[in-house]
Amino acid sequence: MNLPRKVDIREVCLRDGLQIEKPIPLAAKVELLEAIVATGVREIEATAFVSPSKVPALADAPELAAELHRFPDVEFSALVASPNGARRAVAAGLRSIEYVVSASDAHSVANVGRSTTEATAAIADVARVAHDGGASVEVIVATAWDCPFDGPTPPQRVLDIASAAVELGVDRIAIADTIGTTTPRRVTALVEQIRPLTDGLPLGAHFHNTRGAGLASAYAAVQAGVTRLDASVGGLGGCPFAPGASGNIATEDLVYLLRDSGIETDVDLTRAIDAARVAQEAVGHELTSALLRAGDRILG
Amino acid sequence: MNLPRKVDIREVCLRDGLQIEKPIPLAAKVELLEAIVATGVREIEATAFVSPSKVPALADAPELAAELHRFPDVEFSALVASPNGARRAVAAGLRSIEYVVSASDAHSVANVGRSTTEATAAIADVARVAHDGGASVEVIVATAWDCPFDGPTPPQRVLDIASAAVELGVDRIAIADTIGTTTPRRVTALVEQIRPLTDGLPLGAHFHNTRGAGLASAYAAVQAGVTRLDASVGGLGGCPFAPGASGNIATEDLVYLLRDSGIETDVDLTRAIDAARVAQEAVGHELTSALLRAGDRILG
Repeated sequence: MNLPRKVDIREVCLRDGLQIEKPIPLAAKVELLEAIVATGVREIEATAFVSPSKVPALADAPELAAELHRFPDVEFSALVASPNGARRAVAAGLRSIEYVVSASDAHSVANVGRSTTEATAAIADVARVAHDGGASVEVIVATAWDCPFDGPTPPQRVLDIASAAVELGVDRIAIADTIGTTTPRRVTALVEQIRPLTDGLPLGAHFHNTRGAGLASAYAAVQAGVTRLDASVGGLGGCPFAPGASGNIATEDLVYLLRDSGIETDVDLTRAIDAARVAQEAVGHELTSALLRAGDRILG
Repeated sequence: MNLPRKVDIREVCLRDGLQIEKPIPLAAKVELLEAIVATGVREIEATAFVSPSKVPALADAPELAAELHRFPDVEFSALVASPNGARRAVAAGLRSIEYVVSASDAHSVANVGRSTTEATAAIADVARVAHDGGASVEVIVATAWDCPFDGPTPPQRVLDIASAAVELGVDRIAIADTIGTTTPRRVTALVEQIRPLTDGLPLGAHFHNTRGAGLASAYAAVQAGVTRLDASVGGLGGCPFAPGASGNIATEDLVYLLRDSGIETDVDLTRAIDAARVAQEAVGHELTSALLRAGDRILG
């Protein structure tokens, strides 16, 4: 079996986890941030610079960004949906920008009001803004397997975005199962197709556990050559009141699986469970993480 | 990738799913049985012939067994823990017997009051009772990866039970992750070790989703040569009030993943979700199945 020695986890609880929750106070967010930093994770998606009216839970992005200097050993990133968002993120001190391009037109229009082609074309501007500001830029291909409106995404649409992103000088590529529908075989197939195009750049993947196959898909991705995975403590993410919604794969469940596979991460499992508990208290409802309920196993 | 054309699912909701629930009326159980039969599944673990005082939820085993003749196309099995249990099961008309042997002594003693060696020795008597009664017998090796008391189970203990079972003429072997702690790499390793010993006999596996890795482990098992998987509609199983407990892998989540992997089952996905809903109503609390909440994806 072809497994890497180490996988880099990016903790996305503060952004993807919180984005459709009821806004929580900045102080609670900082407490969660501290708990997440204490897990040892080296990359944290802190927030998004997007429309405050569309995503009120992240309207405090500049205020939260002002707290991040306290943790100089962590690479903090922010998600943006436009060159203007990238400008705001860089101005707030962020040095790692994630720019999302939906591979399906219907989702792209619903999400950012632009077609896939238009959003892809804007990669150049986002990259220029980021690089001029001393930041790196990652393109995340959303709806990489399925679209909530259009159904299955033709893989070629994903590959076209990835090729354009490489061409336009981005620093990293990731593929995202935005609605939590993919499964290991489809993950393996897409990763094998995309890897030759992103050669030399780190390839990441982002999974939701909406149909229960999130961890199985993450493991398949790692077996196929992905070395960067997004995860959220507690499995936070997705609206608990919307039928069908579900969170990101839970950091602690992922770390458990990777540890048992002999794969290192920077994350301490016990502290990840602690952080999941902080996240659960912050949002005030039960989270779906398995280890938050079950705890670690007895080790030999 | 080495995937089988088909996987046989055994539906265990009525036994493993219900066994630590508050007892439900026979009529509700029959309604659940009918919903499960409607999924198209060909093998159903109907009940257990064990101590009614230890497992009150299954105390109606003979009464439920009397209903099974209505579904002649389904193979119904019952779990037993002793030759006497096998006698009762055969007398009740069951023609498929599952006999559990725990690979760890601490769990074996806690579960059935006998050491692993003693329980292994009884395979001969169970097989004789079953075969004399025209029934097949499957040995399920419990705590095949970890014991809740002893920690990791040395693989050799599992292999010894499997070898003895083959020697003593059983018809099928299965390995069970009783407490839901295993992960894909450990699954692959054990399946690869056990397969040469069970050559010619169908090898099954039984997973719980307690640490979130149930489906990932099931997929790893299938990749390694397992062609029979236990699953429970709704992911029922495990006590919802006990910290750390969790259910079997959910039938509908498993079928979703296998379908997307190009692997056939006898189970209709929509009807499995319907059956999960019936199970949820029968037990009166929320179940953990992902598809019960999220539904199927939009297919291409």
